[in-house]
Amino acid sequence: MSLLVVGSVAFDSVETPFGQVDEAIGGSAMFFSSSASYLSDVQLVAVVGEDFPDEELQHLESRNIDCRGLIQKPGETFRWEGRYGYDLQDPETLDTQLNVFGDFHPELPDDYRDAQTVFLANIDPELQLEVLDQVEDPEFVAADTMDFWIDGKRGALEEVLSRVDLAMINESEARKLADEANVVQAARGIQELGADHVVIKRGEYGALCFAGDEISFAPAYPLESVFDPTGAGDTFAGGLLGMLTRRGEYGPQAIQQATVMGCVMASFVVQDFSLDALRDLDFEKIQRRCDQFERLVNFEPLELLDE
Amino acid sequence: MSLLVVGSVAFDSVETPFGQVDEAIGGSAMFFSSSASYLSDVQLVAVVGEDFPDEELQHLESRNIDCRGLIQKPGETFRWEGRYGYDLQDPETLDTQLNVFGDFHPELPDDYRDAQTVFLANIDPELQLEVLDQVEDPEFVAADTMDFWIDGKRGALEEVLSRVDLAMINESEARKLADEANVVQAARGIQELGADHVVIKRGEYGALCFAGDEISFAPAYPLESVFDPTGAGDTFAGGLLGMLTRRGEYGPQAIQQATVMGCVMASFVVQDFSLDALRDLDFEKIQRRCDQFERLVNFEPLELLDE
Repeated sequence: MSLLVVGSVAFDSVETPFGQVDEAIGGSAMFFSSSASYLSDVQLVAVVGEDFPDEELQHLESRNIDCRGLIQKPGETFRWEGRYGYDLQDPETLDTQLNVFGDFHPELPDDYRDAQTVFLANIDPELQLEVLDQVEDPEFVAADTMDFWIDGKRGALEEVLSRVDLAMINESEARKLADEANVVQAARGIQELGADHVVIKRGEYGALCFAGDEISFAPAYPLESVFDPTGAGDTFAGGLLGMLTRRGEYGPQAIQQATVMGCVMASFVVQDFSLDALRDLDFEKIQRRCDQFERLVNFEPLELLDE
Repeated sequence: MSLLVVGSVAFDSVETPFGQVDEAIGGSAMFFSSSASYLSDVQLVAVVGEDFPDEELQHLESRNIDCRGLIQKPGETFRWEGRYGYDLQDPETLDTQLNVFGDFHPELPDDYRDAQTVFLANIDPELQLEVLDQVEDPEFVAADTMDFWIDGKRGALEEVLSRVDLAMINESEARKLADEANVVQAARGIQELGADHVVIKRGEYGALCFAGDEISFAPAYPLESVFDPTGAGDTFAGGLLGMLTRRGEYGPQAIQQATVMGCVMASFVVQDFSLDALRDLDFEKIQRRCDQFERLVNFEPLELLDE
């Protein structure tokens, strides 16, 4: 089993009402692969600059993340700086420096091309298409996107959606992409663009999963303290795709279950800055949180007719 | 088994992007009792004016709603006029005419005083206290409230909360009442005011239930069309309290299950204007929706350790 991810690696400087962190490791591919690595082997494709620390690379490799696709280029790594308010919703971007990510074109090592599962993180849909042209018949492909590409590269984005199995997207962006206020109809509209399955990410409200004709709901875990929501969406995606790859099943029930695993993994990462909460997890901790999720929605059956 | 509700009866004029309705029957007590009446006998305490239609009274009585506490006074019934935007969130209030509701003081018919379950809908907390002084040792009391009373009558509201078993409140108002941004900590803060159980209403995202130490989550049903959210919170409360009264159990598991029934009933009312969607329900329709709710969150257990 192998799970390929293509996305960004960044240094994030983040300020929340609860603290701040400077130039911590982040980026969609880092959150995704750190999360997925608890469930599956991961093949990572991304670009970093000369400033990327060796010990971080060693840490990734120690977690069964294949880093041969992580290219180091002359120059600096992508940097992002943002600030969250008390609601911990959409951050204000204070600075973005693309650096070596600016002219990134994903190149897959030869033996990544037969990856079983592929995740196209939220990058330019033209780059997502370049990845799709390099893989050979994967069993399952998922893609994330955002409003920037919906506005700016709609044609390429629609081609991506016509070629993937699962679209993963924030609620407000789903509404925008489908031009539809109702979230169910928005998901159906995205399915009509070609993605068989759609997962709508709702932040602290969990995720709605439209797997074929089936609708299901995965709650977010009600945490007493949320520290830093940066990377929650990619960590969610890592749990979801990692679980699918682990099971090797991609039907509606497997996707529904994997969506819950996505929420489980996201519930860890927001409890600390950067990737810190994903560094020392183990099966026991993850299983305990899984069990808490089951109790969260495990209500007694409502039987009115048998009385 | 008897379930007492004290609240408002109103004529609502509502405009949404999908249509409008003029002077349709509404008010917290009407939505609540219409919903609860599918699950339990209901005793209604409210006030209406001379303009309240006889056929509406007959309809209520046909649904096993005891209307001896529904007092008719000289003058006009409470009127509310509001408009919703495309997000169908917080409506803009265009007009409020309290009319006979302006000097309402609830008076319970003698044989309402030993009600088993009591719901104090969102009215002045001083009136809620008047009701509490008139009931004799009910098994379970729930109260709703809103920001207007949090700002204006905090002392009376805190006394109410110290005397009820369950506080039911919107998410933003829970944060305001507890002066706490995190929703889990806000709920814990409200429990510290005296309510053993707290249910946080999150609109289209469902409800969080803090029953004693247990946290559970009830999703809202993802509907393809939502017509008019007016009364959804009171319909939710009617399903919740109706189910508790029906079972005659008030422990954490029963409250968790009843919270789901609240979401089930609310999922009907928003599909049409006013009370219309609650007028012709039956056990089969409600049971079918209950089964849909179970499928919504019925994911395969996540077992990592046994592999």
